[in-house]
Amino acid sequence: MLARASGRSLRVDDALLVEIDAVSRAIAERLKRPYTDFEPGVRKQATMPEGGVSLGLAGTAPGVLLELDRHIAVALPGPPAELQRLWARALETEPLQRLLARTSPPELRRLRLFGVSESAVARALEDADGGRDAQDVTICARDFEIHVDLVGDAAALEPELASRLAPYLYARGETTVEEVVLDRCRARGLSLATAESCTGGLVAQRLTRVPGASDVFRGGVVAYSNELKQELLGVAANLLDRHGAVSGAVAEAMATGARDRLGADVAVSVTGIAGPGGGTPEKPVGRVYVSGVTPDGSETLEFDFWGDRDAIRRRAAVSALHLVRRLLTQT
Amino acid sequence: MLARASGRSLRVDDALLVEIDAVSRAIAERLKRPYTDFEPGVRKQATMPEGGVSLGLAGTAPGVLLELDRHIAVALPGPPAELQRLWARALETEPLQRLLARTSPPELRRLRLFGVSESAVARALEDADGGRDAQDVTICARDFEIHVDLVGDAAALEPELASRLAPYLYARGETTVEEVVLDRCRARGLSLATAESCTGGLVAQRLTRVPGASDVFRGGVVAYSNELKQELLGVAANLLDRHGAVSGAVAEAMATGARDRLGADVAVSVTGIAGPGGGTPEKPVGRVYVSGVTPDGSETLEFDFWGDRDAIRRRAAVSALHLVRRLLTQT
Repeated sequence: MLARASGRSLRVDDALLVEIDAVSRAIAERLKRPYTDFEPGVRKQATMPEGGVSLGLAGTAPGVLLELDRHIAVALPGPPAELQRLWARALETEPLQRLLARTSPPELRRLRLFGVSESAVARALEDADGGRDAQDVTICARDFEIHVDLVGDAAALEPELASRLAPYLYARGETTVEEVVLDRCRARGLSLATAESCTGGLVAQRLTRVPGASDVFRGGVVAYSNELKQELLGVAANLLDRHGAVSGAVAEAMATGARDRLGADVAVSVTGIAGPGGGTPEKPVGRVYVSGVTPDGSETLEFDFWGDRDAIRRRAAVSALHLVRRLLTQT
Repeated sequence: MLARASGRSLRVDDALLVEIDAVSRAIAERLKRPYTDFEPGVRKQATMPEGGVSLGLAGTAPGVLLELDRHIAVALPGPPAELQRLWARALETEPLQRLLARTSPPELRRLRLFGVSESAVARALEDADGGRDAQDVTICARDFEIHVDLVGDAAALEPELASRLAPYLYARGETTVEEVVLDRCRARGLSLATAESCTGGLVAQRLTRVPGASDVFRGGVVAYSNELKQELLGVAANLLDRHGAVSGAVAEAMATGARDRLGADVAVSVTGIAGPGGGTPEKPVGRVYVSGVTPDGSETLEFDFWGDRDAIRRRAAVSALHLVRRLLTQT
């Protein structure tokens, strides 16, 4: 495609062919598969437009940089991890360094907010901006979090906007709520555990996505059945009978049970009805209870989330993480 | 944007305004927030191009259909769930029904494969196709699964391709591996449990994403620390000492422990080094052990995955799910 767009002809790059061939043989050996599984792709992967500069390989996938009259074209593999790896190499090449030296990338500031509506953020922005209607601002809502990107001149609005939205501002830049939770635990030497029902491991999965989570996170229980809520978390049978598995009382018992049984200082629990089935008039689909216990105090919240099963689960997990964050911040 | 592209002027739709206003008030009440948080957006949301037909609301987000000279333009909200909801409504409208009556959508067949390389699939396709090089075939690799989409005329290749790739074909269409696992358990009245270390809840999370998982899935343990592997899963201390937490022996003990402690018929476990830290020359980052126990037999596998923490975790979870699927299919 790059060759066609640039009007260049295609050729097999011999050095690249040798390289891809070697990687393919190594992969074949490692996977204990015959090399012939990989052979047909090798020549194709080593083909590039005349004048193209190889960026090396991500696995067996090549990247190529091509200088055109007034532009530089970079072709990268599609899978994000491979793209990112070879893009880093492209940035190091002389043509791109030369290009970047002539430009200054716009400043980017991101504020991460929780517990505030999109329209309230828009209003705060209008006020911070003196009604000038900044163009280079993106407000993106996602599972009750709102991320505000301030680009270029708009970056100057950051201090004013941050101060107007201070109660909701939990992080800046790329820092996620699970990172904030782990950092706060780590700073105080606290260990963490989870007890999940309707989120089915989503909270634990988000926490363990963070490298180094293991020095804070001891583990979690996914107690989908009522028996497991009793056996693994010590939730009393009469509590389940009286209030039902989806209740504030059971959420609290799950959190304290996780703390005690898993030997942690801090625990968070989620129980709810993610749907599409299982709702009742008293407890509709979307009803979720989230409970957090910390050495400083504990709290249980009731939510009625809208959306499909996936959205309800994601929002429940986000709300659980933010509850722990808040409990660990108040002191 | 739609108004600008079509050359129509904008107007506030009064009926839509009333509708959005009502929804906004209901949301404000439900969220216990002042209505003024929502008010500024209401009028803007109710503005549509002259001649546009409202598709109703997803939350407070409207959709609009506009008939142009030779085309129909449909503008939908960006969030996928909202888009999908209103797209379903758009399909029911008279203009779109009229358009669809004149067309026949191309047939689409999807084969879902596991344990085969992309290039082996490409070769099987060439053979099935008699070398005719079908244009309407997409081969998409993702975490060791390969999805082959056959569109239009290429759909006729399905039986031949499926027979050539039979050992790797685990499902067709939109069916995921977690659905296959749950279905196989359900058909035989078997219950299921998980024990995870490096995947941190990812396997449980994938299983519980499926509506109705609760009639098969009892729960899971995320045993990140060695103490929890002993306390919650009964993994023997001397096993941990002798083989290390990342070993086939511990993976097997985690699976049998999960089966016994969680009272399930089938259990699957994962333990490994997701990185970026924690690797050694003997056990490098990417080393993962996966173990499955079923009434028919059990198996433990060793993997060396490539990629970053996220890729290693995803691949480990996929491999665990496919191990259980295979163990439940062999009988």
